[in-house]
Parts: sequence; structure tokens; C-alpha cells
Amino acid sequence: MPLLVMKFGGTSVADLERIANAAQKVKREVARGYDVIVIVSAMSGRTNELVGWVEETSPLYDAREYDAVVSSGENVTAGLMSLTLQEMGVPARSWQGWQVPIQTTSQHASARFVDIPRDNIDQKFAEGMKVAVVAGFQGVSPEGRITTLGRGGSDTTAVAFAAAFGAERCDIYTDVDGIYTTDPRISTKARKLEKIAFEEMLELASLGAKVLQTRSVELAMRYKVRLRVLSSFEDSDENSGTLVCDEEEIMESKAVSGVAYSRDEAKLTLVTVEDRPGVASAIFGPLAEAGVNVDMIVQNISEKDYEGRTFAVTDMTFSCPTNQVARARKAMEDARANGQIAYEELVEDTDVAKVSVVGIGMRSHTGVAAKMFQALAAEGINIKVITTSEIKISVLIDRKYMELAVQALHDAFELEAGA
Amino acid sequence: MPLLVMKFGGTSVADLERIANAAQKVKREVARGYDVIVIVSAMSGRTNELVGWVEETSPLYDAREYDAVVSSGENVTAGLMSLTLQEMGVPARSWQGWQVPIQTTSQHASARFVDIPRDNIDQKFAEGMKVAVVAGFQGVSPEGRITTLGRGGSDTTAVAFAAAFGAERCDIYTDVDGIYTTDPRISTKARKLEKIAFEEMLELASLGAKVLQTRSVELAMRYKVRLRVLSSFEDSDENSGTLVCDEEEIMESKAVSGVAYSRDEAKLTLVTVEDRPGVASAIFGPLAEAGVNVDMIVQNISEKDYEGRTFAVTDMTFSCPTNQVARARKAMEDARANGQIAYEELVEDTDVAKVSVVGIGMRSHTGVAAKMFQALAAEGINIKVITTSEIKISVLIDRKYMELAVQALHDAFELEAGA
Repeated sequence: MPLLVMKFGGTSVADLERIANAAQKVKREVARGYDVIVIVSAMSGRTNELVGWVEETSPLYDAREYDAVVSSGENVTAGLMSLTLQEMGVPARSWQGWQVPIQTTSQHASARFVDIPRDNIDQKFAEGMKVAVVAGFQGVSPEGRITTLGRGGSDTTAVAFAAAFGAERCDIYTDVDGIYTTDPRISTKARKLEKIAFEEMLELASLGAKVLQTRSVELAMRYKVRLRVLSSFEDSDENSGTLVCDEEEIMESKAVSGVAYSRDEAKLTLVTVEDRPGVASAIFGPLAEAGVNVDMIVQNISEKDYEGRTFAVTDMTFSCPTNQVARARKAMEDARANGQIAYEELVEDTDVAKVSVVGIGMRSHTGVAAKMFQALAAEGINIKVITTSEIKISVLIDRKYMELAVQALHDAFELEAGA
Repeated sequence: MPLLVMKFGGTSVADLERIANAAQKVKREVARGYDVIVIVSAMSGRTNELVGWVEETSPLYDAREYDAVVSSGENVTAGLMSLTLQEMGVPARSWQGWQVPIQTTSQHASARFVDIPRDNIDQKFAEGMKVAVVAGFQGVSPEGRITTLGRGGSDTTAVAFAAAFGAERCDIYTDVDGIYTTDPRISTKARKLEKIAFEEMLELASLGAKVLQTRSVELAMRYKVRLRVLSSFEDSDENSGTLVCDEEEIMESKAVSGVAYSRDEAKLTLVTVEDRPGVASAIFGPLAEAGVNVDMIVQNISEKDYEGRTFAVTDMTFSCPTNQVARARKAMEDARANGQIAYEELVEDTDVAKVSVVGIGMRSHTGVAAKMFQALAAEGINIKVITTSEIKISVLIDRKYMELAVQALHDAFELEAGA
């Protein structure tokens, strides 16, 4: 019997009516001949309520107790979803993490999967059950305590089950109807993609297209689990939404698949850093310790004369989220004070944004960067920092031009037209 | 290390503030040198909310899914209580039913204990944990599914843990400060009892003094677990509340310990039933099948001449809750229609109440019944039905005299004065 994994997020199971709506979608897949594993999140708002109670009770909480409390929301949805399916005549039962058992590491609140044994669920399928409803986001540690996977963990649970059970596909039902070429709020010309490669999705996700949790896409890529993102609130068929898949499934691709952005970036430059081996780690070590999420890094080396001698010096520029600038400054000043690094000045620019073009087609198309820079220049937008990877080109620009840049790039790469 | 079981009901853990208040009481017992097992209910209102969702989803719900959903409320409280204790510097951890594991039968929604293994909790006590917080009301079936014990099951969980761990005492914290000689709303002279015997408590509980669940008292009696009922909302010491204990602990007792009542009783009389072997089962069989909770039963046998022959005939009188009268009538009429029983008439009196005096002292004191009837007669109250047991005498009277009867009996047996 072919098997499908279907995952419903918090807004898709927010109340009994929405649970019934989701169950209808499950029932239709059963009617099409599938065995189904349904992964559910907590009803929206529930997890926040539970987290709030834990944090109010104990600001430096024991993560084991946090997990025991917070995981209860998914258990409620799993039972209610199973009851709803039964009421519709579909043989279903619920599973809590420990009943599968979903084995994870002991890193509470951010556990990782160790194993998902199939025996219990397979046996019930063999006995005639059509739907296994599994509480997402949770598992059990080697010590027998409840673990959670961290926020967004239900997506990861869904992909892990799809991999473990060899599912034909993993359908992620959410409140958007797919992945777009860019944010439709910024460009009305944004177009829904039929397919997108795992690598592209990863670049888009980490850049702010917050539809799928990054870890779930990584897992899907590793196990080649075909992911489909689609809306809970619309009728759907096999072609709805966006398929996130291996690039081999994407016959022909344009140079660029999408334009992403990140609004709250800051650019920091350490002016005149002595260029010697180890200087990068002397800078970025303290930043990492201070919990600063450094994104782009650019280093320009030059030579400078000082008291008759020539030194190799560098300006080191990096970007991080705006709200981490103070932390970054303190880390740098401390490192200078205790002699770890030397620099003349720390220049901060907190009015920048990052805009990126992403596409696996870049590997085979040339001139993508040139076209990007030209499009921005035509709009009079100055580029402050550039970084590139195999399938992505990112630039930092003044924040006030961000929307204009996204629109200009969307036009330049003809993303509206369709593949 | 001496061990105490402390149980907190829904109103005692209704919000974070009350959980903190309950935790303070636990901390004080730890400071006195006890290891403590805390049994918690769901925060008040939570279980009703969950039950409401289940019933709305599926009126004829699968009880296994009901249990999976409804048990989640206690899990939340257990985690929060454990965090609160940790925050107060008390080494604590939470246990869900399956983690102990609390082994029960498979009768979902009304499971019974099979075993409570001590190993896991004992090991943690040995490692320095001072408080085990256990989610009440739940367990796990031989099939590995979550079970619940039915409403009030947290009291039963507490007693079962006290028995399994040989606790010195089982303290039930609730919203009343003990067991009274009668309902203080009816008699301002009602006095809190220091001690009450298990048997007396059972009679009082089933008569409407709804402080402790009957099953928990039965279990306590069987395993000789000393129970203490006391208020969560008052300061308490070793002498607070009421101790429910073996009668051997009660040195000297009065003839009567308390006066109980039940307001919504109805009296039904089957007039002129033929008295033959099997007639009682022919009457009460159909009533039981119809779900009628028959309480008192009185049979008066007389002889009657009919067409020159003498027959033994009887009037059969029984009582049941007022809202079950229609069901009882239908059961009797059906049984007559299909020839199971024969009677002349069914007389209903729905304006009666039951008043009872209860006391283990009745066994050694004589004249209790006479004194009771005299006190009622002195107030002009007519007695309609009398039943007696070893430690209880109950009468049915007109409902309008109920309060008066309770007050008169409380006075007659000098319950105000103190033991």
C-alpha cells in the first residue's frame, strides 16, 4: 500500500472546525488508496501558552520539565484528530512520541532523532488501520524522558517519518499555498513555483522565506524525501502547492528561481585590522561566544606604511541582525581591551538590508552576477557588500531601497513569466 | 527517610500562584525531613475543556483517544509543579503515568490499578531527589495505551501511591478544611472532626459529603493508609484538617459522628406485589438494567384473601434519585407488560429527602435509633421509610423538613460539643 505523510501546522488545527477540515483532506487521500501518517502540531496559541507558564514559573527552567509540559499540546491535537477521523469512518489511532517510540538524543528542547522504529505502526496498518496520527515535535530520550525538537519541530518529525516509512511524499499543510519567486507583499508580480530544488529552498528559508523549517529541508534533502508545501484552507489536488524535490526532478531551470531579502541587517566594519594568520578566528571566535549570528563576511587586504615599515592591513566587514549590534560591539571592544585583536575603529551601519537571488540554474548559466549588478545600478542602488555561493548571490544595500531592489531583480530575471 | 504523599486537587493548582502556594506546603514537609510524592490534578477547568472538545468531536468517542486527550491536563500541572519546586531550591522531577509506569487495566476512562512499581522513583530518591511529582488520574494499559481512572481518580492515585510506598500518611489538599459533623450550610453548629473512621467516611461520602472520592476511601481502608483532608488555602500543621483512619486509632467515640443528607430522593412503592421467591430480582433486575440507582429497599409482607384463597402479598418500597423516577416507572411498566412482575399500582413520592446518622460508636452504644426517632417526633417530622446498617440509620422524610431534621439530630446527638 503506498504511504503518504501529511503534516498540519498550528493554524491548520487551531480549533475543532479546522481539525475537521484537515481530517477531510486526510480522508480523501485514504480514498485514493493511501495509508497515511498524519503529523500534528498543537492547536495554535497552545504552545505559546504553555511556554509562557513555564517561563513565568522558572526563568532558568529545567529543560526536561519544559519538554514534559510543552509537548502536551500536540498530544491533545493527535487525540482529537484521531477521533475526528474515526467519526468520519476512517480507522485511525493516535501515537504520542513515547508510544512509537520516537527515539531522540537527550538534548532537551532541541533534541535530534536517533531512530523511528516502524514495528508498532506497521503492525496497526497490517491490522487494517488506515491513518496513524502522530504528535509532532516530540520524542523520548534514552533516559525515558520526553524531549522536544525545538520550534518548527513538527516539520522535521514529518520528514523523518516520511524517510523512515519510505513515504511517496510528505505534504506540509500550512497557511500559505506554496513557495513564491519572492514575497508577494513586496512584489505583486510574485509567482508560485511548481517545483523548487532542496538547495534553493534551503537558501530561501535561511534568508527569511519562513515557510519550512531549515532542518526539515536538510533532512528531506539527505533522505531524498519529496516535500510538498500547500494550503490547508484551499481545495487541493496532486498538483497543488509547491514541490520541494531533488534537482534531478526539475527538468529545465532558469538561472534564478527566486529573490529573497532580509530587512534587519547591520553592517559592521573593523577598520585597519592587522592581517596575520589567526586574525579571523580572533575576531569571529569572540563574536560566536557572544551569540552573534554573523552572516556575510568580507575582507579587503591592503598595505599600509607605519613608521617606515610596511604592514599588511585589512578592513574586516561582517553583517549580523540589527538587534545584535550592541552585543557584537561589546565583544569586539572586550577582545581589543584584552589584546586579542587590534583595530583602529569599528564602523556600524544599521540601515542596511540584504537582497539575494537564488537558483540552481546559476551553475549552468553565466552572467547572473553581472545582470544582477546592472539591474541594481539601473535603479541607482549602491551595493555595499557582495557575497556569492554556488547557487546564490547576496548584496547589502541601503534599507530604503530594499523593496525597489527586489522588484527590479524580479523583473530582470523574468520571474513573473513562468518556467 | 519517612515518606509522605500529598495530593492537590484542581482548585488547589488552578493557576501559577496557587501552584506556588501548594509548592510551599510541599517544601515545608521536605524541611521537616520527609521525602514527598506529590499527586496533582489538572488546573481547574482544563479537564472540562478537554472533555468538551472530545464530546463535541465524537459523541460516541473511542475511550482510548478520550484518555489520551484528557490525561494531558495532569501532565502540564506535574511539570509546572516540579519547576516551581526546583525554583524554590527543592530537588524535584515530574512523572507521567507511563514513566512510573502506573500499570492499570484496559478499561479506558475507568481503569483500575494493577501495579505501581517503585523502582524508578525509589532510585531517584536514592540519588537525592526530594519530591516526585506524579500526574494523577492516569496510567498505562497492558497494550501501552494511556488510561484514566475516571473522575476523582487523583484521590485514588494518591492513596495507591501511599500504599505502594508505605507512606506515613496521605494528605489530600482540597478547598474545604476537613470533614464536618454535618453540612455547615445547613447547621451553623457543624463542627470539624479531628478524626473519622474509614467506614464512617464511606457512609458519609456516599451520602453526599463529596470531599473524598468513595473509591479512594475504600482503597485507603483496605491498605490502612491514613488519609488527611485539609485546606490548600490555609496554613496547616500536623493537626490540621481531619484524619481519616482505622477505627483503632480513634480512642473513644460517640454513638454518632455525623449527620448526612441527600436532598433529591424519590420514594416509589409497588403496591400489592405477589410475594414469591424471585420477586425481588424480578423487580430490581430491570431497574438495574435501566440504570436506576436504587438506594433504600423496604419490603412489608402481609396476607391477602382473594377469591377464597389466602395469598402472601407485599408492598415493595424503594428510593432512587428524583431524576431517575421516569426511567424507573418505565422499567416497571415494561416488566409488568411482559409478565415478569405483577403489581396493583406504582405510587411515586418525589418530595422526600434522606437523612442519616453515621457512627462506628453505634456498635457499642444502644438506643441510637430510639433517640433519633424521638428527636424527629419532637419536631413533628413523620418518618416514611427506615433502613439501618451496622453504623448508619437512614430515614426518608418530607423534603421540606430536611434542614430541620439535620439540625434536630445534630443537637440530639450533641455533635457540637466536641469529642
